[in-house]
Amino acid sequence: MISVVILGAGNVATHLYKAFRNAENIEITQWYNRSRSAISSYANTVEITDKLEDLKEANLYIIAISDDCIAEFSSELPFKDRFVVHTSGSVAMHDIDKKNQIGVFYPLQSFSKNAEIDFSEVPICIEVYEKENLQLLKDLAQAVGCKAHKITTEQRQTLHLAAVFVNNFTNQLYRIGHEICETKNIEFNILHPLIEETAKKIQHMSPFMAQTGPAKRHDKKTIKRQLKLIEKDSHASIYKLLTASIKSTHGFNSPKPIKTTKD
Amino acid sequence: MISVVILGAGNVATHLYKAFRNAENIEITQWYNRSRSAISSYANTVEITDKLEDLKEANLYIIAISDDCIAEFSSELPFKDRFVVHTSGSVAMHDIDKKNQIGVFYPLQSFSKNAEIDFSEVPICIEVYEKENLQLLKDLAQAVGCKAHKITTEQRQTLHLAAVFVNNFTNQLYRIGHEICETKNIEFNILHPLIEETAKKIQHMSPFMAQTGPAKRHDKKTIKRQLKLIEKDSHASIYKLLTASIKSTHGFNSPKPIKTTKD
Ligand SMILES: NC(=O)c1ccc[n+]([C@@H]2O[C@H](COP(=O)([O-])OP(=O)(O)OC[C@H]3O[C@@H](n4cnc5c(N)ncnc54)[C@H](OP(=O)(O)O)[C@@H]3O)[C@@H](O)[C@H]2O)c1
Ligand SMILES: NC(=O)c1ccc[n+]([C@@H]2O[C@H](COP(=O)([O-])OP(=O)(O)OC[C@H]3O[C@@H](n4cnc5c(N)ncnc54)[C@H](OP(=O)(O)O)[C@@H]3O)[C@@H](O)[C@H]2O)c1
Repeated sequence: MISVVILGAGNVATHLYKAFRNAENIEITQWYNRSRSAISSYANTVEITDKLEDLKEANLYIIAISDDCIAEFSSELPFKDRFVVHTSGSVAMHDIDKKNQIGVFYPLQSFSKNAEIDFSEVPICIEVYEKENLQLLKDLAQAVGCKAHKITTEQRQTLHLAAVFVNNFTNQLYRIGHEICETKNIEFNILHPLIEETAKKIQHMSPFMAQTGPAKRHDKKTIKRQLKLIEKDSHASIYKLLTASIKSTHGFNSPKPIKTTKD
Repeated sequence: MISVVILGAGNVATHLYKAFRNAENIEITQWYNRSRSAISSYANTVEITDKLEDLKEANLYIIAISDDCIAEFSSELPFKDRFVVHTSGSVAMHDIDKKNQIGVFYPLQSFSKNAEIDFSEVPICIEVYEKENLQLLKDLAQAVGCKAHKITTEQRQTLHLAAVFVNNFTNQLYRIGHEICETKNIEFNILHPLIEETAKKIQHMSPFMAQTGPAKRHDKKTIKRQLKLIEKDSHASIYKLLTASIKSTHGFNSPKPIKTTKD
């Protein structure tokens, strides 16, 4: 049995709480948040608190609060030599106050409080400073059905960067698609099946192999026609830059496809 | 019963053939391709031909060949006053030779021969020149379980443009994510669940509402740190441009979210 204290009550903390509650080998000792109101509705199912001095002993303390506050918050914890991790993709592990044993438990997924997520599908990136703590984080991930990946700080920050490309930037391309449809009174949801298929395709082939379209084909006529159709300069800049990027990936002197175990 | 002749044997033609074969109210009169070898393995289940002069009478002829060849190919058809459509997102309907009745049957999806697709989920964009032909295309779409959308040429070309953003450009962002992971020996497939979730999220909320991350939060510290981490200039340019795009969408004087029926 792993005993855990959750610190914070945002998107990640709430998803962790739900996943831990359903796991057989995890006991949620306490749930802390600086404002009690955010967790008061859970008071019947878990011990809640808004006072750091009331925190009880547990195997693990998970800080799931805003990135910028993690360092200071960790220094305010009224105990030492216990095991404290944060859940951030970008904050350094060493930002956690060294009076405790430190680590990272980064769930690589985009959480919103209201969107249900199959937590067992979430990859957990873990890092520890004291080697003997590694197994505990692995066990915790396993107890909620997740795959754990031991990575370095540099790898985690690189993954977080890659996540910005495939999540935030991709979502902005969806937004631009939405804007383009809007100008001609087209329902954006006609594009939903295509968007799902685009994401699905690369689950079994590399993005290199999955590429199609005018830029990949070096189809100048279509590219020119589409550029004429674009009404917003900012959309045109993105069209040009990503077309150039695809051309360079798939050009005559293009880089080889990256080999992965799945290709 | 709708009788159909399929012309061409590429990705789209092959998916149409499979969908039509399974539909109760569709009869595939013939399948034509200029090179017989591409369709010869189907000779037991459908009448195949590589000679235009052998084409039989049918309610509808579907030209599913490369965009650039549609106009010339349609002029070579050895009959007139029959109903001929193409399946392209970008070619004008009027590129089809006017000796026949003309139209468009554009399936808005990305097809590869080997990837299975639930065809009933594919939106079909239809266009006709002779109004009395509209019902036939609607019936055809319905017979394979698809939603049909009557649109104009301009709307179809706009949709095709939007599709380039949400499909080809998105896939290139996946490719960049792959390259970034590769530089630090990280398996790209750790990002698969995030990619799927990003696509799923906008099936029930607008991309505007779904946006998260450093650019949306105007989080200068993280943006600066990530730019330092990027090793390729071309990646940095895309990072900067899409960050600016998100900032402008979600800035203080940002455009309002687009209202759709689903929001
Ligand atoms: N959201 C994601 O998709 C995601 C994914 C992976 C990792 N992460 C990481 O997980 C962590 C939490 O993110 P989140 O999205 O769950 O955040 P969030 O929803 O914005 O919630 C922030 C939480 O931090 C608390 N908080 C803020 N400032 C604080 C302070 N000075 N002292 C104590 N508590 C403070 C807030 O308390 P109040 O309720 O009192 O305001 C709230 O409970 C971050 O490190 C983030 O990088 C997030
Ligand atoms: N792929 C997609 O995701 C997709 C989606 C929506 C719409 N479309 C549209 O559907 C159409 C077909 O695309 P596709 O992807 O199926 O193409 P494809 O896989 O590249 O196949 C092209 C087909 O066109 C034939 N062809 C090429 N030049 C020809 C010519 N001069 N005369 C006669 N036949 C010729 C080829 O015959 P051979 O076998 O003899 O070479 C082949 O059967 C295009 O208009 C495209 O824009 C494609």
